[in-house]
Amino acid sequence: MSGRGQSGVLYGVGLGPGDPDLMTLRAHRLISGAQVVAYPSLAGGASFARSIAAGAIPAGAREIVMDVPMTVERGPAQAAYDTGAAAIAAELEAGRDVVCLCEGDPFFYGSFMYLFARLSGRFRVEVVPGVTSITTCAARAGMPLAARNERLTVLPGPLPEPELRARIDGAESVAIMKVGRHLAKIRGVIEALGFTDRAVYVERASLPDEVVCPLAEAPEKAPYFSMILLTKGADPWL
Amino acid sequence: MSGRGQSGVLYGVGLGPGDPDLMTLRAHRLISGAQVVAYPSLAGGASFARSIAAGAIPAGAREIVMDVPMTVERGPAQAAYDTGAAAIAAELEAGRDVVCLCEGDPFFYGSFMYLFARLSGRFRVEVVPGVTSITTCAARAGMPLAARNERLTVLPGPLPEPELRARIDGAESVAIMKVGRHLAKIRGVIEALGFTDRAVYVERASLPDEVVCPLAEAPEKAPYFSMILLTKGADPWL
Ligand SMILES: C[S@@+](CC[C@H](N)C(=O)[O-])C[C@H]1O[C@@H](n2cnc3c(N)ncnc32)[C@H](O)[C@@H]1O
Ligand SMILES: C[S@@+](CC[C@H](N)C(=O)[O-])C[C@H]1O[C@@H](n2cnc3c(N)ncnc32)[C@H](O)[C@@H]1O
Repeated sequence: MSGRGQSGVLYGVGLGPGDPDLMTLRAHRLISGAQVVAYPSLAGGASFARSIAAGAIPAGAREIVMDVPMTVERGPAQAAYDTGAAAIAAELEAGRDVVCLCEGDPFFYGSFMYLFARLSGRFRVEVVPGVTSITTCAARAGMPLAARNERLTVLPGPLPEPELRARIDGAESVAIMKVGRHLAKIRGVIEALGFTDRAVYVERASLPDEVVCPLAEAPEKAPYFSMILLTKGADPWL
Repeated sequence: MSGRGQSGVLYGVGLGPGDPDLMTLRAHRLISGAQVVAYPSLAGGASFARSIAAGAIPAGAREIVMDVPMTVERGPAQAAYDTGAAAIAAELEAGRDVVCLCEGDPFFYGSFMYLFARLSGRFRVEVVPGVTSITTCAARAGMPLAARNERLTVLPGPLPEPELRARIDGAESVAIMKVGRHLAKIRGVIEALGFTDRAVYVERASLPDEVVCPLAEAPEKAPYFSMILLTKGADPWL
């Protein structure tokens, strides 16, 4: 805490999966009133989070952009969050609230947790949950994720093949995130287990160029914003 | 389809975990413009879904209430959804849209899937995803659910003790839903596995009477709207 009066509050605001209409009322209100917004941007490119919130960001708002390199080693990304956290801390210390824009939900495979880890000990932080990509993909595919006493497993696509195989085999309903360049590997695993006819592929759910189809008909190349849902129950929702 | 013109659309609208501010813009707009709303209500009692949406339901809207008995056998609940589906179908056939109010997300352990199963073959159905209770509980507990290549397992509390034990043991991050009267059993399992100090208890997240505490300090009795989150990673989010 600085001695110069009241510190600002850091808001980690979930924006939902892409369609701005799937923002919460609270997210929309916080963004509309923001003096300072912060968001990650991949390697100098456009920020997906910013594009979701764009219509609500006030014209005069200050913007803190965190350029996060997409490397396998974690050092460079950590350095980007260190720099971003310092810039955010300076605003908070000056008494200004900061609204951090987070695609989907901030705590569901979201990068906001790196800022939370760096700043929640020193400042008030409020996390505003958002609609996640998994329930959005399920909604768009017309495929209930889980009912009654069913278990649901969420797996990241980059997991090694043997682990993916074991985890899918032992699971009931499965959502596989971060498909992207792992599509061929994941397809192979699902095919080998005999579940291809129970799997759907969803790309850019809720956006104008969304793709939803049976896994067997998925394109050769998947973008980063894609997911595979698989449910093993026989008509589990009747 | 009736021959009397265009049928209405059934909207399955996620309302989020309880705080009306966590409704999406789309949910709020659909409810505000609804001619007919439908919702489940437990055994003649109040409807949690209706209470979340209450401030947005237009004064003159027709309301279809589905009284769902909380029995272990599925027959009586199925009969309630049959009756509800018939009442909804009559509105849709008359050309009126129906907005079905769903706590949290409609396809995440939600009862909307029973209506979807009954009506999606005959009518246009749109599912509007909502903020789920798991990410809300994580937000309120300041506990990221999953990062990077971590796995997340969602387990319903009513599962038998040996299965709960095996599933928690083999998992990384775990969310246990439907705690309620299963609290003592779940606590026992987590204690026996040595994970009590990594588990938090969250009750009625986002509501004015919310409770968030370490599992060790959880009350003796849990209400139906409660959850346990557990994460095994050592500082997994840095
Ligand atoms: C780093 S995670 C972020 C998840 C996000 N925080 C959430 O709550 O959904 C990125 C992954 O989420 C999934 N994802 C996010 N938005 C999506 C969308 N609109 N359609 C399909 N998948 C999406 C993809 O699997 C993508 O690789
Ligand atoms: C039938 S499920 C419905 C889940 C809902 N469709 C969702 O998306 O979160 C009911 C369970 O959700 C959890 N739940 C729902 N709302 C909650 C809240 N506000 N706080 C804590 N748990 C909640 C509890 O575990 C409860 O037993």
